Amino acid sequence: MNYATLTPAHIEKLTAIVGAGNIITEKEKMIDYSHDEFSQAEIAHFPDIVVKPHTTEEVSRIMKLASEQNLPVTPRGGATGLCGGCVPIYGGIVLSLEGLKKIVEIDTENVMAVAEAGVTLQELYQAIEAKGLYLPPHPGDENATVGGLVVCNAGGARAVKYGVIRNFVRGLEVVMPDGQVTMLGGKLIKSSSGYSLLHLMIGSEGTLGVVTKAIINLYPPPQAIYTLVVPFNSLGEAIKTVPAIIQGTIMPMAVEFLERETIAVTEDFLNRTWPTKDGSAYLMIILDGSSEDELMQQAEAIGQLCLDKGALDVFVADDKTKQHNILEIRSQTYEAMRGNMLEILDVTVPRASIADFVAAVHKASEEMGIWLPTYGHAADGNVHTHIMRARFDKGKWTETPGWQEKYEKARDRVHELGKEFGGIVSGEHGIGMVKKEYLTHFLDQVQLSLMRGIKQVFDPKGICNPGKVI
Amino acid sequence: MNYATLTPAHIEKLTAIVGAGNIITEKEKMIDYSHDEFSQAEIAHFPDIVVKPHTTEEVSRIMKLASEQNLPVTPRGGATGLCGGCVPIYGGIVLSLEGLKKIVEIDTENVMAVAEAGVTLQELYQAIEAKGLYLPPHPGDENATVGGLVVCNAGGARAVKYGVIRNFVRGLEVVMPDGQVTMLGGKLIKSSSGYSLLHLMIGSEGTLGVVTKAIINLYPPPQAIYTLVVPFNSLGEAIKTVPAIIQGTIMPMAVEFLERETIAVTEDFLNRTWPTKDGSAYLMIILDGSSEDELMQQAEAIGQLCLDKGALDVFVADDKTKQHNILEIRSQTYEAMRGNMLEILDVTVPRASIADFVAAVHKASEEMGIWLPTYGHAADGNVHTHIMRARFDKGKWTETPGWQEKYEKARDRVHELGKEFGGIVSGEHGIGMVKKEYLTHFLDQVQLSLMRGIKQVFDPKGICNPGKVI
Repeated sequence: MNYATLTPAHIEKLTAIVGAGNIITEKEKMIDYSHDEFSQAEIAHFPDIVVKPHTTEEVSRIMKLASEQNLPVTPRGGATGLCGGCVPIYGGIVLSLEGLKKIVEIDTENVMAVAEAGVTLQELYQAIEAKGLYLPPHPGDENATVGGLVVCNAGGARAVKYGVIRNFVRGLEVVMPDGQVTMLGGKLIKSSSGYSLLHLMIGSEGTLGVVTKAIINLYPPPQAIYTLVVPFNSLGEAIKTVPAIIQGTIMPMAVEFLERETIAVTEDFLNRTWPTKDGSAYLMIILDGSSEDELMQQAEAIGQLCLDKGALDVFVADDKTKQHNILEIRSQTYEAMRGNMLEILDVTVPRASIADFVAAVHKASEEMGIWLPTYGHAADGNVHTHIMRARFDKGKWTETPGWQEKYEKARDRVHELGKEFGGIVSGEHGIGMVKKEYLTHFLDQVQLSLMRGIKQVFDPKGICNPGKVI
Repeated sequence: MNYATLTPAHIEKLTAIVGAGNIITEKEKMIDYSHDEFSQAEIAHFPDIVVKPHTTEEVSRIMKLASEQNLPVTPRGGATGLCGGCVPIYGGIVLSLEGLKKIVEIDTENVMAVAEAGVTLQELYQAIEAKGLYLPPHPGDENATVGGLVVCNAGGARAVKYGVIRNFVRGLEVVMPDGQVTMLGGKLIKSSSGYSLLHLMIGSEGTLGVVTKAIINLYPPPQAIYTLVVPFNSLGEAIKTVPAIIQGTIMPMAVEFLERETIAVTEDFLNRTWPTKDGSAYLMIILDGSSEDELMQQAEAIGQLCLDKGALDVFVADDKTKQHNILEIRSQTYEAMRGNMLEILDVTVPRASIADFVAAVHKASEEMGIWLPTYGHAADGNVHTHIMRARFDKGKWTETPGWQEKYEKARDRVHELGKEFGGIVSGEHGIGMVKKEYLTHFLDQVQLSLMRGIKQVFDPKGICNPGKVI
């Protein structure tokens, strides 16, 4: 792509739109805007300018200017992404949406939230809970923002019962690459009114336009939540129990799988204790329901089913403290691994194939001599393989010899296996810049060419988050 | 559009693909293929040929030929549509998918169904139930086929809790307008892997390609279902109870609203009796749950809430016979009205606005002197206004004087009101040919132009279901 270079005249115009206090041009102040949570520093790129609008109208004026002047724009939310989606590869403008912070309303009549793109998930949850309502999806990082959650179609563990964020988004205000503003959908539960631009925008990672506001469907909160931890002798046994759970009459909110050796890292990191030392692999099952009685019955039924399938025991966390301890260990596993991690993968396979897929990843790990701890969302097939530069054993980390060469090979191999097992490259993290090559391995030419055609329709000048997705 | 005219050479080639027994060219045998369920005979058009493939490969060869020869193709499923979506406006080929009848598998491990486009909803339900599984959405007509359900993003009453068909479709085999075959998605619960072509195809009404096979996510069946009939003194009171229900801790599977005068038509038509003569308007609430105990509690709680809001009584149908009677009356209302109906509308408004919207429709009905009975899905805002050529009163139908002139005006007025109340033209029926003009009233130029661009990318020759949607 041939983009224009940012000139002092551009800076002046951008300053006129957002005010001098909402512009950054000094390199040392732009470090944070050169990367996301992806662990490899090599992918960082500096923008020429960071611009922080506070209204949709400002976003529109910025996009109009960028379009007219042929300047690349990289929209940016909470930057909690894991595949370089908000890295400004071509420099130009980083459009940080952190200033669009209004929770416009929690509409209790329509049971929907309306929030601007820069509102964090944490802020949104608080506002929703304050009105006695509930947003089921729970992606890992609560610093993620509404815009980012939508354009990456965020998932999280609770997708088993409630689905991913896509299922909850009912309307989107979008600033098109040329600056035009449009409202897709609305406070509507149903629509069959032409091609779903709404669903096309969800998961488009900022490459088709800038999401500035979202209308999100809410639910009544569950009256009670139980968390079960179920140890097994092997990961295979644990995962093979999952189809039996899913086929049963109780649909859990979440079914996660973890291995002893991964939990050991997090126990050490957090100085907390997992409820059991038994077994080498675990299912963590979260149940929600409309009463304690209902949940108790459900927990018993699912516990018995696990025991029938070879579980060593069933730990039921029915109070908040116990549950918090377990969820903390599960959710901080990423943080605990991060310092020694090269990359977290996000392959999703059919749920009946998880056991075989994970066994194949383990085999590859042994053959290649690189630690590939794998855990994730057992009931929705979304498997996070971590490529590690070191291994944690007997309480300490030891660097893996030759990890530099092994990294690429392991990455290729896990994706190859994902394809073999009928999977797809990303379940919830998106493509960004680091998974583009794999997307082309998983999709055929028909689909890749349709995606390129769609990009051309929405963003004919190619200025909106260039170099991402396709 | 300038399409080629079907020649004997084309007929020969099509016959070579599907065999002589799967071709119709005699006009008298093509009557059924000239229309759908839309009641106005004026919109019917005859094709030049009906072609019935039995495999995806045959569909692919037909599309390749049509594309090369510039022949218009109108794909057709169960023809249960209500907006002329499968009417071959430009003649040419009707591609009837009735021969693609394989239920490929009910995959109990992945808890998904794989079925070809021509399988009817009834056949699909039977196969799913035989394996002890459950597909929550329930659009009205079980003669609808899998392909049609997907490309119209079918809804039905149960969308309140479980969502529309879109939420369940996980993969689609699609034959592109040029004959290329591609598989979108798969047996996957989650995917954030590029633009969602899957969700673009859902609701595209056969204008972007031909869906030949679908992978559909299933659920465990509910252990028990209760149906409540709750009479109120006025429709306003009935509908205003709905937000209170939705905000509560129990999410019903369905909440329908009906009026006494509509039920009277169906009672007469079916010779059945609605459970109560009280009141002039009703909510019909369907609850599902994992046990009878749970449901009993839920029914009591929701019943009490309705009484607090002014309900005259609460009838709980807890056995199958009673429930069947109620559901039969509700689901046959369309059939009962049909003979005297000009059109059924499908406007969807925010659920908090239904009461005001319906009041405004009633007012318009009185002012115009045309009966516009309105009922539908109260908890998802999907309101079916029926434009009637006659009125049912004291057991008999009386033709409305001047209905011919009033029809268009009533149609325009209801859609205007829908727009005023923040609604959209179609909640579940789609656009087809008869709602195209209204789509352009509800959407702005940005969206219409993006939709035209998308159509151009998928179907550059414009041969796939021409004249529909956009």
